[in-house]
Amino acid sequence: MSIKNAFYAQSGGVTAVINASACGVIETARQHPDRIGTVFAGRNGIIGALTEDLIDTSQESDEAIAALRYTPAGAFGSCRYKLKSLEANKREYERLIEVFKAHDIGYFFYNGGGDSADTCYKVSQLSEAMGYPIQAIHVPKTVDNDLPITDNCPGFGSVAKYIATSTLEASFDVRSMAKTSTKVFVIEVMGRHAGWIAAAGGLVEDQGIPVVILFPEVPFDQERFVATLRSKVETFGYCTVVVSEGAKHPDGRFLAEQGTRDAFGHAQLGGAAPVVANLIKETTGYKYHWAVADYLQRAARHLASKTDVEQAYAVGRAAVEFALAGHNAVMPAIKRTSSDPYTWEIEMAPLAKVANVEKFMPREFISEDGFGITQSCKDYLYPLIQGEDYPPFARGLPSYVTLKNAPVARKLADFAL
Amino acid sequence: MSIKNAFYAQSGGVTAVINASACGVIETARQHPDRIGTVFAGRNGIIGALTEDLIDTSQESDEAIAALRYTPAGAFGSCRYKLKSLEANKREYERLIEVFKAHDIGYFFYNGGGDSADTCYKVSQLSEAMGYPIQAIHVPKTVDNDLPITDNCPGFGSVAKYIATSTLEASFDVRSMAKTSTKVFVIEVMGRHAGWIAAAGGLVEDQGIPVVILFPEVPFDQERFVATLRSKVETFGYCTVVVSEGAKHPDGRFLAEQGTRDAFGHAQLGGAAPVVANLIKETTGYKYHWAVADYLQRAARHLASKTDVEQAYAVGRAAVEFALAGHNAVMPAIKRTSSDPYTWEIEMAPLAKVANVEKFMPREFISEDGFGITQSCKDYLYPLIQGEDYPPFARGLPSYVTLKNAPVARKLADFAL
Repeated sequence: MSIKNAFYAQSGGVTAVINASACGVIETARQHPDRIGTVFAGRNGIIGALTEDLIDTSQESDEAIAALRYTPAGAFGSCRYKLKSLEANKREYERLIEVFKAHDIGYFFYNGGGDSADTCYKVSQLSEAMGYPIQAIHVPKTVDNDLPITDNCPGFGSVAKYIATSTLEASFDVRSMAKTSTKVFVIEVMGRHAGWIAAAGGLVEDQGIPVVILFPEVPFDQERFVATLRSKVETFGYCTVVVSEGAKHPDGRFLAEQGTRDAFGHAQLGGAAPVVANLIKETTGYKYHWAVADYLQRAARHLASKTDVEQAYAVGRAAVEFALAGHNAVMPAIKRTSSDPYTWEIEMAPLAKVANVEKFMPREFISEDGFGITQSCKDYLYPLIQGEDYPPFARGLPSYVTLKNAPVARKLADFAL
Repeated sequence: MSIKNAFYAQSGGVTAVINASACGVIETARQHPDRIGTVFAGRNGIIGALTEDLIDTSQESDEAIAALRYTPAGAFGSCRYKLKSLEANKREYERLIEVFKAHDIGYFFYNGGGDSADTCYKVSQLSEAMGYPIQAIHVPKTVDNDLPITDNCPGFGSVAKYIATSTLEASFDVRSMAKTSTKVFVIEVMGRHAGWIAAAGGLVEDQGIPVVILFPEVPFDQERFVATLRSKVETFGYCTVVVSEGAKHPDGRFLAEQGTRDAFGHAQLGGAAPVVANLIKETTGYKYHWAVADYLQRAARHLASKTDVEQAYAVGRAAVEFALAGHNAVMPAIKRTSSDPYTWEIEMAPLAKVANVEKFMPREFISEDGFGITQSCKDYLYPLIQGEDYPPFARGLPSYVTLKNAPVARKLADFAL
């Protein structure tokens, strides 16, 4: 069979383990020199393909590629850029084909979430629509855990482990301080549409910690929230609140957009945690502290879930294997074959069923009062945070790799995005 | 020699390793049953002594006490409560003596920062002033790293390691996203008076990350800050900003108190990071993300510095040894005997020279432009974050211990604080 080069790119918000998928793709490709020539990475995602800004990963040593397995964020750069439909922007698709042809690219691996699955699916259709042979395989990744078919998304398990651990640790802190000082700790977590990450904070309940969770799925009921919080503080002496950045008022406004104004009269930007903290002070007088984890949570490779790292690597490897087996327009998905003991395997999902479909938290994962998680939710979550997979450290800090990212010589004219 | 009981209490803001000091005190005391009877812990610090709310640590197994070494926060509860002077509140001192007598307490170990050193010093003077024999030893602890004499304070090394690691990880994240999305990441760290913790964020410069630090010691110069930030973004494509919660305007107002108002017209509470982020947007238009680490940083036992854990344990052990050697009004201090290789030993500091003295960052640790750290600062910091000391994990989460904290039967009448 003929040798074709491969294109790999990272898309959307990065995670603690997206580079583990890159590692899986590149290491597996390197094992098949009879089928796959060079893996070109797109610098900054699909933009790298459009602008012919390719990275020659063959310039990276095996050691450097192996180090991707424990390096967070996107080693080749990511982007937020969604291709329009073939009808709406044929020019971009023609350009992609031009670049693929120029660099003899026959395999397209796109590592991202829902929007990227859509891009990948569109590329997969180039084969037929534009008569260019390309096999497009989507490599799933998203801390939001909202891709369909797959039981969970690589990237989520590590965020869940980080948030559960941080919530546990900070709860121990506020418990220590509660007698004369802070009684409520508020932590804001990611998840604009779904409460998967916030749910992970609920795992600390099993260690006797009182927690109230504010999910995007449950319209914020101030009165019931304050009553629930008050009751927990009266019982335990303290309480932890996990608020999703996507938590909303019943009218659909985000809690974070509370109509606050800065000194110049501009709308005050973001932070559901300070808004909730302020509300707690106004209504109960409890002393509080608040934290916003933001990028810290999704970049925290130092506390990655071993399960997550293994799955991220496995979907990268499987993507290459699917390509070598001749598939197009598919995605490796994680299938849970048992929860206790936890076992999983990789199955093949048709990309047509993945693109533009969002998976929300099942209602039965949220407790009846809307402020906690159920046993089914815990049974779902625990396996995903299992195991530690520490990076190597040097001089007290993680030894993450920064690749050379050597550019591939351009063969085409410039292209304006 | 006679056997006396000991009193141990935790004071002020807790840390990832204050329980390692508790572990050092209790394990060492248990090795001397001929001299030390029971270690009573104050429930919630000195309040436990005043209200005769004592915890019988002899009810805890050796395993539980050993687990304190890897458990964050204050296992016996802490407090923010400062004793007045003997002249101003003789009643409290008389009460302490009453409680000490009732429970045959001859050793007083107080684990805290500057304010607590003052309390401990006052208690040490009871011996003479009120004719009650007590040996008071201060066990140093503070993430603020502002105690004098000691080269560094237990608790600081772990926060420094956490902030440096988190800044590194989040910087990798923003670097990945910068092409089409976030260009500036702002992280707010603790340190109301001194920039020690913010300085730790500067260590990532050695890994090629562009960082701007806003120290409490350097009045905020908006124009120079924006110019510096802009220049780094133009050079690197992105930049990380580490802002201390104590960063101030030239007129002394905290950045966090920017005069922002919520929807009800109340002063908006806290957060230097969102204020700085907002300013960046207004002046440069750069897309940003911001995080506030708050309790997460000081509770992050999962990423403790091994050096810090060892030192925290060592000061606990030394405190008991000092007491057994007959000392009063002293504190174990850490003496750096070499920076490279890093070596240290415990020396004895007179408490009179510790109480009410704050140690600030030397000016020569801050770079000339005021936005970074110098090589001397790095040479000081690196040894303190050396080594990892992971807690055991179970079901994906750290297995921290929660003690029984069995109360000691009261012998005295109630006491109103």
